[in-house]
Amino acid sequence: MQRQNKSKGVIEAINEAGLEAKVMEGSQQKIVGVIGDKTRLAAVPVDALPGVETSISISKSYKLASREFHPQSSIIDVAGVKIGDGTPVVMAGPCAVESKEQLFEAADIVKAAGAQFLRGGAYKPRTSPYSFQGLEDEGLKYLAEARERTGLRVVTEVTTVEAIEGVAKYADMLQVGARNMQNFGLLKEVGKCGKPVLLKRGLAATIDEWLNAAEYIMNEGNPNVVLCERGIRTYETYTRNTLDLSAVAAVKHLSHLPIIVDPSHGTGKWRMVKPMAFAAIAAGADGLMIEVHPNPAKALSDGPQSLTPENYREVMSGIKKLSAFMKEENIVPMTIG
Amino acid sequence: MQRQNKSKGVIEAINEAGLEAKVMEGSQQKIVGVIGDKTRLAAVPVDALPGVETSISISKSYKLASREFHPQSSIIDVAGVKIGDGTPVVMAGPCAVESKEQLFEAADIVKAAGAQFLRGGAYKPRTSPYSFQGLEDEGLKYLAEARERTGLRVVTEVTTVEAIEGVAKYADMLQVGARNMQNFGLLKEVGKCGKPVLLKRGLAATIDEWLNAAEYIMNEGNPNVVLCERGIRTYETYTRNTLDLSAVAAVKHLSHLPIIVDPSHGTGKWRMVKPMAFAAIAAGADGLMIEVHPNPAKALSDGPQSLTPENYREVMSGIKKLSAFMKEENIVPMTIG
Amino acid sequence: MQRQNKSKGVIEAINEAGLEAKVMEGSQQKIVGVIGDKTRLAAVPVDALPGVETSISISKSYKLASREFHPQSSIIDVAGVKIGDGTPVVMAGPCAVESKEQLFEAADIVKAAGAQFLRGGAYKPRTSPYSFQGLEDEGLKYLAEARERTGLRVVTEVTTVEAIEGVAKYADMLQVGARNMQNFGLLKEVGKCGKPVLLKRGLAATIDEWLNAAEYIMNEGNPNVVLCERGIRTYETYTRNTLDLSAVAAVKHLSHLPIIVDPSHGTGKWRMVKPMAFAAIAAGADGLMIEVHPNPAKALSDGPQSLTPENYREVMSGIKKLSAFMKEENIVPMTIG
Amino acid sequence: MQRQNKSKGVIEAINEAGLEAKVMEGSQQKIVGVIGDKTRLAAVPVDALPGVETSISISKSYKLASREFHPQSSIIDVAGVKIGDGTPVVMAGPCAVESKEQLFEAADIVKAAGAQFLRGGAYKPRTSPYSFQGLEDEGLKYLAEARERTGLRVVTEVTTVEAIEGVAKYADMLQVGARNMQNFGLLKEVGKCGKPVLLKRGLAATIDEWLNAAEYIMNEGNPNVVLCERGIRTYETYTRNTLDLSAVAAVKHLSHLPIIVDPSHGTGKWRMVKPMAFAAIAAGADGLMIEVHPNPAKALSDGPQSLTPENYREVMSGIKKLSAFMKEENIVPMTIG
Repeated sequence: MQRQNKSKGVIEAINEAGLEAKVMEGSQQKIVGVIGDKTRLAAVPVDALPGVETSISISKSYKLASREFHPQSSIIDVAGVKIGDGTPVVMAGPCAVESKEQLFEAADIVKAAGAQFLRGGAYKPRTSPYSFQGLEDEGLKYLAEARERTGLRVVTEVTTVEAIEGVAKYADMLQVGARNMQNFGLLKEVGKCGKPVLLKRGLAATIDEWLNAAEYIMNEGNPNVVLCERGIRTYETYTRNTLDLSAVAAVKHLSHLPIIVDPSHGTGKWRMVKPMAFAAIAAGADGLMIEVHPNPAKALSDGPQSLTPENYREVMSGIKKLSAFMKEENIVPMTIG
Repeated sequence: MQRQNKSKGVIEAINEAGLEAKVMEGSQQKIVGVIGDKTRLAAVPVDALPGVETSISISKSYKLASREFHPQSSIIDVAGVKIGDGTPVVMAGPCAVESKEQLFEAADIVKAAGAQFLRGGAYKPRTSPYSFQGLEDEGLKYLAEARERTGLRVVTEVTTVEAIEGVAKYADMLQVGARNMQNFGLLKEVGKCGKPVLLKRGLAATIDEWLNAAEYIMNEGNPNVVLCERGIRTYETYTRNTLDLSAVAAVKHLSHLPIIVDPSHGTGKWRMVKPMAFAAIAAGADGLMIEVHPNPAKALSDGPQSLTPENYREVMSGIKKLSAFMKEENIVPMTIG
Repeated sequence: MQRQNKSKGVIEAINEAGLEAKVMEGSQQKIVGVIGDKTRLAAVPVDALPGVETSISISKSYKLASREFHPQSSIIDVAGVKIGDGTPVVMAGPCAVESKEQLFEAADIVKAAGAQFLRGGAYKPRTSPYSFQGLEDEGLKYLAEARERTGLRVVTEVTTVEAIEGVAKYADMLQVGARNMQNFGLLKEVGKCGKPVLLKRGLAATIDEWLNAAEYIMNEGNPNVVLCERGIRTYETYTRNTLDLSAVAAVKHLSHLPIIVDPSHGTGKWRMVKPMAFAAIAAGADGLMIEVHPNPAKALSDGPQSLTPENYREVMSGIKKLSAFMKEENIVPMTIG
Repeated sequence: MQRQNKSKGVIEAINEAGLEAKVMEGSQQKIVGVIGDKTRLAAVPVDALPGVETSISISKSYKLASREFHPQSSIIDVAGVKIGDGTPVVMAGPCAVESKEQLFEAADIVKAAGAQFLRGGAYKPRTSPYSFQGLEDEGLKYLAEARERTGLRVVTEVTTVEAIEGVAKYADMLQVGARNMQNFGLLKEVGKCGKPVLLKRGLAATIDEWLNAAEYIMNEGNPNVVLCERGIRTYETYTRNTLDLSAVAAVKHLSHLPIIVDPSHGTGKWRMVKPMAFAAIAAGADGLMIEVHPNPAKALSDGPQSLTPENYREVMSGIKKLSAFMKEENIVPMTIG
């Protein structure tokens, strides 16, 4: 959009970059449409050209993650477990691996109630340097042992490039956490490591930025990306974050990648995990990530949002019934296309 | 919380107001707890007292809307239809009443698919003074005629104190819209009018402010308040608002009032109405408000988020099945207490 | 923006409304530009047309408030005091009128330090119905008496249509508060009342919505609108609101109306009033609204953000020096055009 | 805060962790205050204990960054230039280093107008993998050459742990960007590298999280941290971010570290840089970071927010006059303590 008689310079700049410019003349403004390969536009700082009031991007900058270029929904295989095939998966476990005993106890509970994945942090990104930072390597080994013990797949967070190799050795799926969603160095390296990646939405990331982050991973040759909505930062303080369940529908429309939901971080309150887990399934999520702790009152991290084993079993029972019913009755939350 | 040796003045000010002060001494700060009738604290501007770093409110300022004082969930009767009794109600119809024909056509569709309420705006609050402002009185009359025709209850928005009498004459339930959630003059008057009130959450209202707004209505003698989550304002621009479904669980925990969900305004996109409607039911909402238009492509207001009759029937079919199944299987989203 | 071969229907719908459609063809999408009188577009729900992915508004919906149609900055005369003429005005006083004594004492302090306006609420919009709601009529009379006593102009909030007449009788300028910024009934009536209006920005209002709210007032024949930035709602909890000083620059660019800044509500902390008042002046604000109380520790409302008389005098001294220096040295914060 | 008779378990858990519990009994709730070393509380997941409704943290988790433990404002020396000594510093230059010629031209302009630092990105974190990612090593060398040429200090961003060594070799100050503010691995390593660090506020970081991020760096033995406010993410879309100038006052109150302001990223519009730069100085900022480009219309990154050389000189002239005047007249924005 631009004013006055300055459209000539704008059009020239666009043409110089090998792009086509189309002009629409309104009574107050001229609108100049730009058509062509978007990457070329990077070389034209449209807003900075004299006479330009503002510019608006119409086409998306991600391609590999986009449904436009890949209409079929992707199914991601993680060591034999399929994510995105119509049956929701559950990743459950404690926020942090605290000890072998705690982890094994949690893993047994998780397994017994029917989840497919064990989650648990060995590397913990914490706001304060004085908070518990995780058992690191030792924690990874306990996770691998818990996998042997239960047959569950393991998903765990990787917070630094240096840790990727170690995590990839022990885990079936690497998690990139919310605080690292735009740690582009890390994204590129997990894109190279060959393991499926669970990409959590950033604390205040738009859906567009999130899909661009997925694009960073996919652009390195790794198509196995699963997205995880975990709540966004808003003005509301009652919940730890605001769980944005409409992101499930948005991602299903914009992308072919599977999306799961984390109601534990999304709300920060164990009381809300059950209703939000049910809601996620009804909205069409491909799975859930849930914090469960043998004894939340003794958890070293995120106790307030961890379920007791009993609550957890109730959630599992409900979501299994709900998802089976929806499949049986052909209740389809999101019409694609 | 306060520093230095100034706690004496603080304690005196609290005592003068007839409240009790309890002091806890930390190594860096003193914490002064205040116990007693919260309304008395209004006369003590605690943060402004010398030495005070900050004050934090622990108890809630609403009472009539609080579950603490009314543990039993309320069921609101609107002309014979019960809201909050375990079976979700549906309020559907066009955003705005545009003509008798449009409204009757919409009402017939709404009725046929099994909703209990017809919604439709006769007074429309619009961002720009040049947008369609509604048919006003004429619109109210069409709504009353559509009620006669179909047997549906009518819920419609009231935007000014002057309009209350007219709206109350024709409608079964008065809606207070998001932009007026803290129009306290309006809240007091709908509190006096005797009709049940549907109170939408403000654009950027906290749950605490929302329940305080309900308190304004209830404090005038009207206990028949139903809350409606309709999306909050966040940084995300893909959706018109961010539908906060965790508000359903929060309100169920904090209040005894019923809560319904409006996925049409909550997302601003018709494609997202179905998944979010299913999610709301699974989260335990007491009902839904849905925009449906005989021909959304001709709607004078909010076409992009209105369902076609066909989409609408699909939504209705899904939520009926889902809610019946959850009742049958005793899948309880929110454990109270 | 739209996909597939559906552009024909879109173009027809636009043409039917008497508007011109221009098509730009990209490789993935077609872009349809719409040219003509924007009010006609209200009859075409573009997003709801088949094949449309999304629509984006380019031209603004406000005209009277826009600088495009009124390049010259407006100077608003309030009972002889000019707002917007290059010399910042100050509106100071207590949050609420509490008693004749408190108000007179405050007015004397305000006057002595050199402000032009006395502010003070007679009608107070409060989150809880149990908080102090203002002295109402009695408060208005005290304000009028304080005006007689000091020669200060009086600005005070009007919260209901019914109160306009009374407030207009006693006050020189009517304030529409943040919670009522989209109370369109109130906006229209203050637009008819003939008195200058101070329009505060809504809690979570965009600049576009704010200027549209001004348009409601101006569209009723009242051009005397002054805007007031008072902080917006964000995720940050350290301050009561986030004071958006860039709104000063934005409003100066988009509109010809004067804009003042309220650092007291904008921060909620008296310690921050001085630096933010200085910053507002340096950013080019046309004035300030500041809470000052003879004894903040006894204030019935907003004590934590009220200045003591001593702090207030320091602020006044600083802003007078700063604004005089900027004028003298021709330091112009905002280059218009 | 807690209900019912469950306070006994809570008190026991607190005592077990070696902390003291003090109980205040209200009519509806009991409040249990916890006193002692905060790090011990990490082992007690208070909210998860039976009967607990919520917990509120009173004392801060950062210590080295806190003014409570270091009342004197810190002055950070960067290769002889002092930040925080009362005279604002300016860091200016292009968003990205694009070529030797562009950088040298920019450096000469920056130097001539009187800045102390040259800024320019060699490693660029970009939302899309297809956007220009910076010249990397080559860019660092150009920066070092520009330093030789002009005598300006160099500040540039480091985005990965692997890049620290190279950046530290060529730059005088390492910048941690907004997207990496909670990249804790990176924070720890820049804490070990010995060079002063410019820590930008995260996109949606609270002031508390920001000071905790500084704590990560300081806790590794590096006390030379300067904070940089660069706008936060809000619902407002007119500006790229919302520049939170009240953060200057907040940081001055809570911390002894210097704070500078980046009005270029903070607003995203070159028109707003001048007024916001003036405002930052008036608010008491210790400096500014400003994007200037020899020819913004040709910039590969952030052209819309870059100043032309002419605009830049105007900004520099204004802030020099303003800061000199404030010093001379002893206009103190923030009263500490």
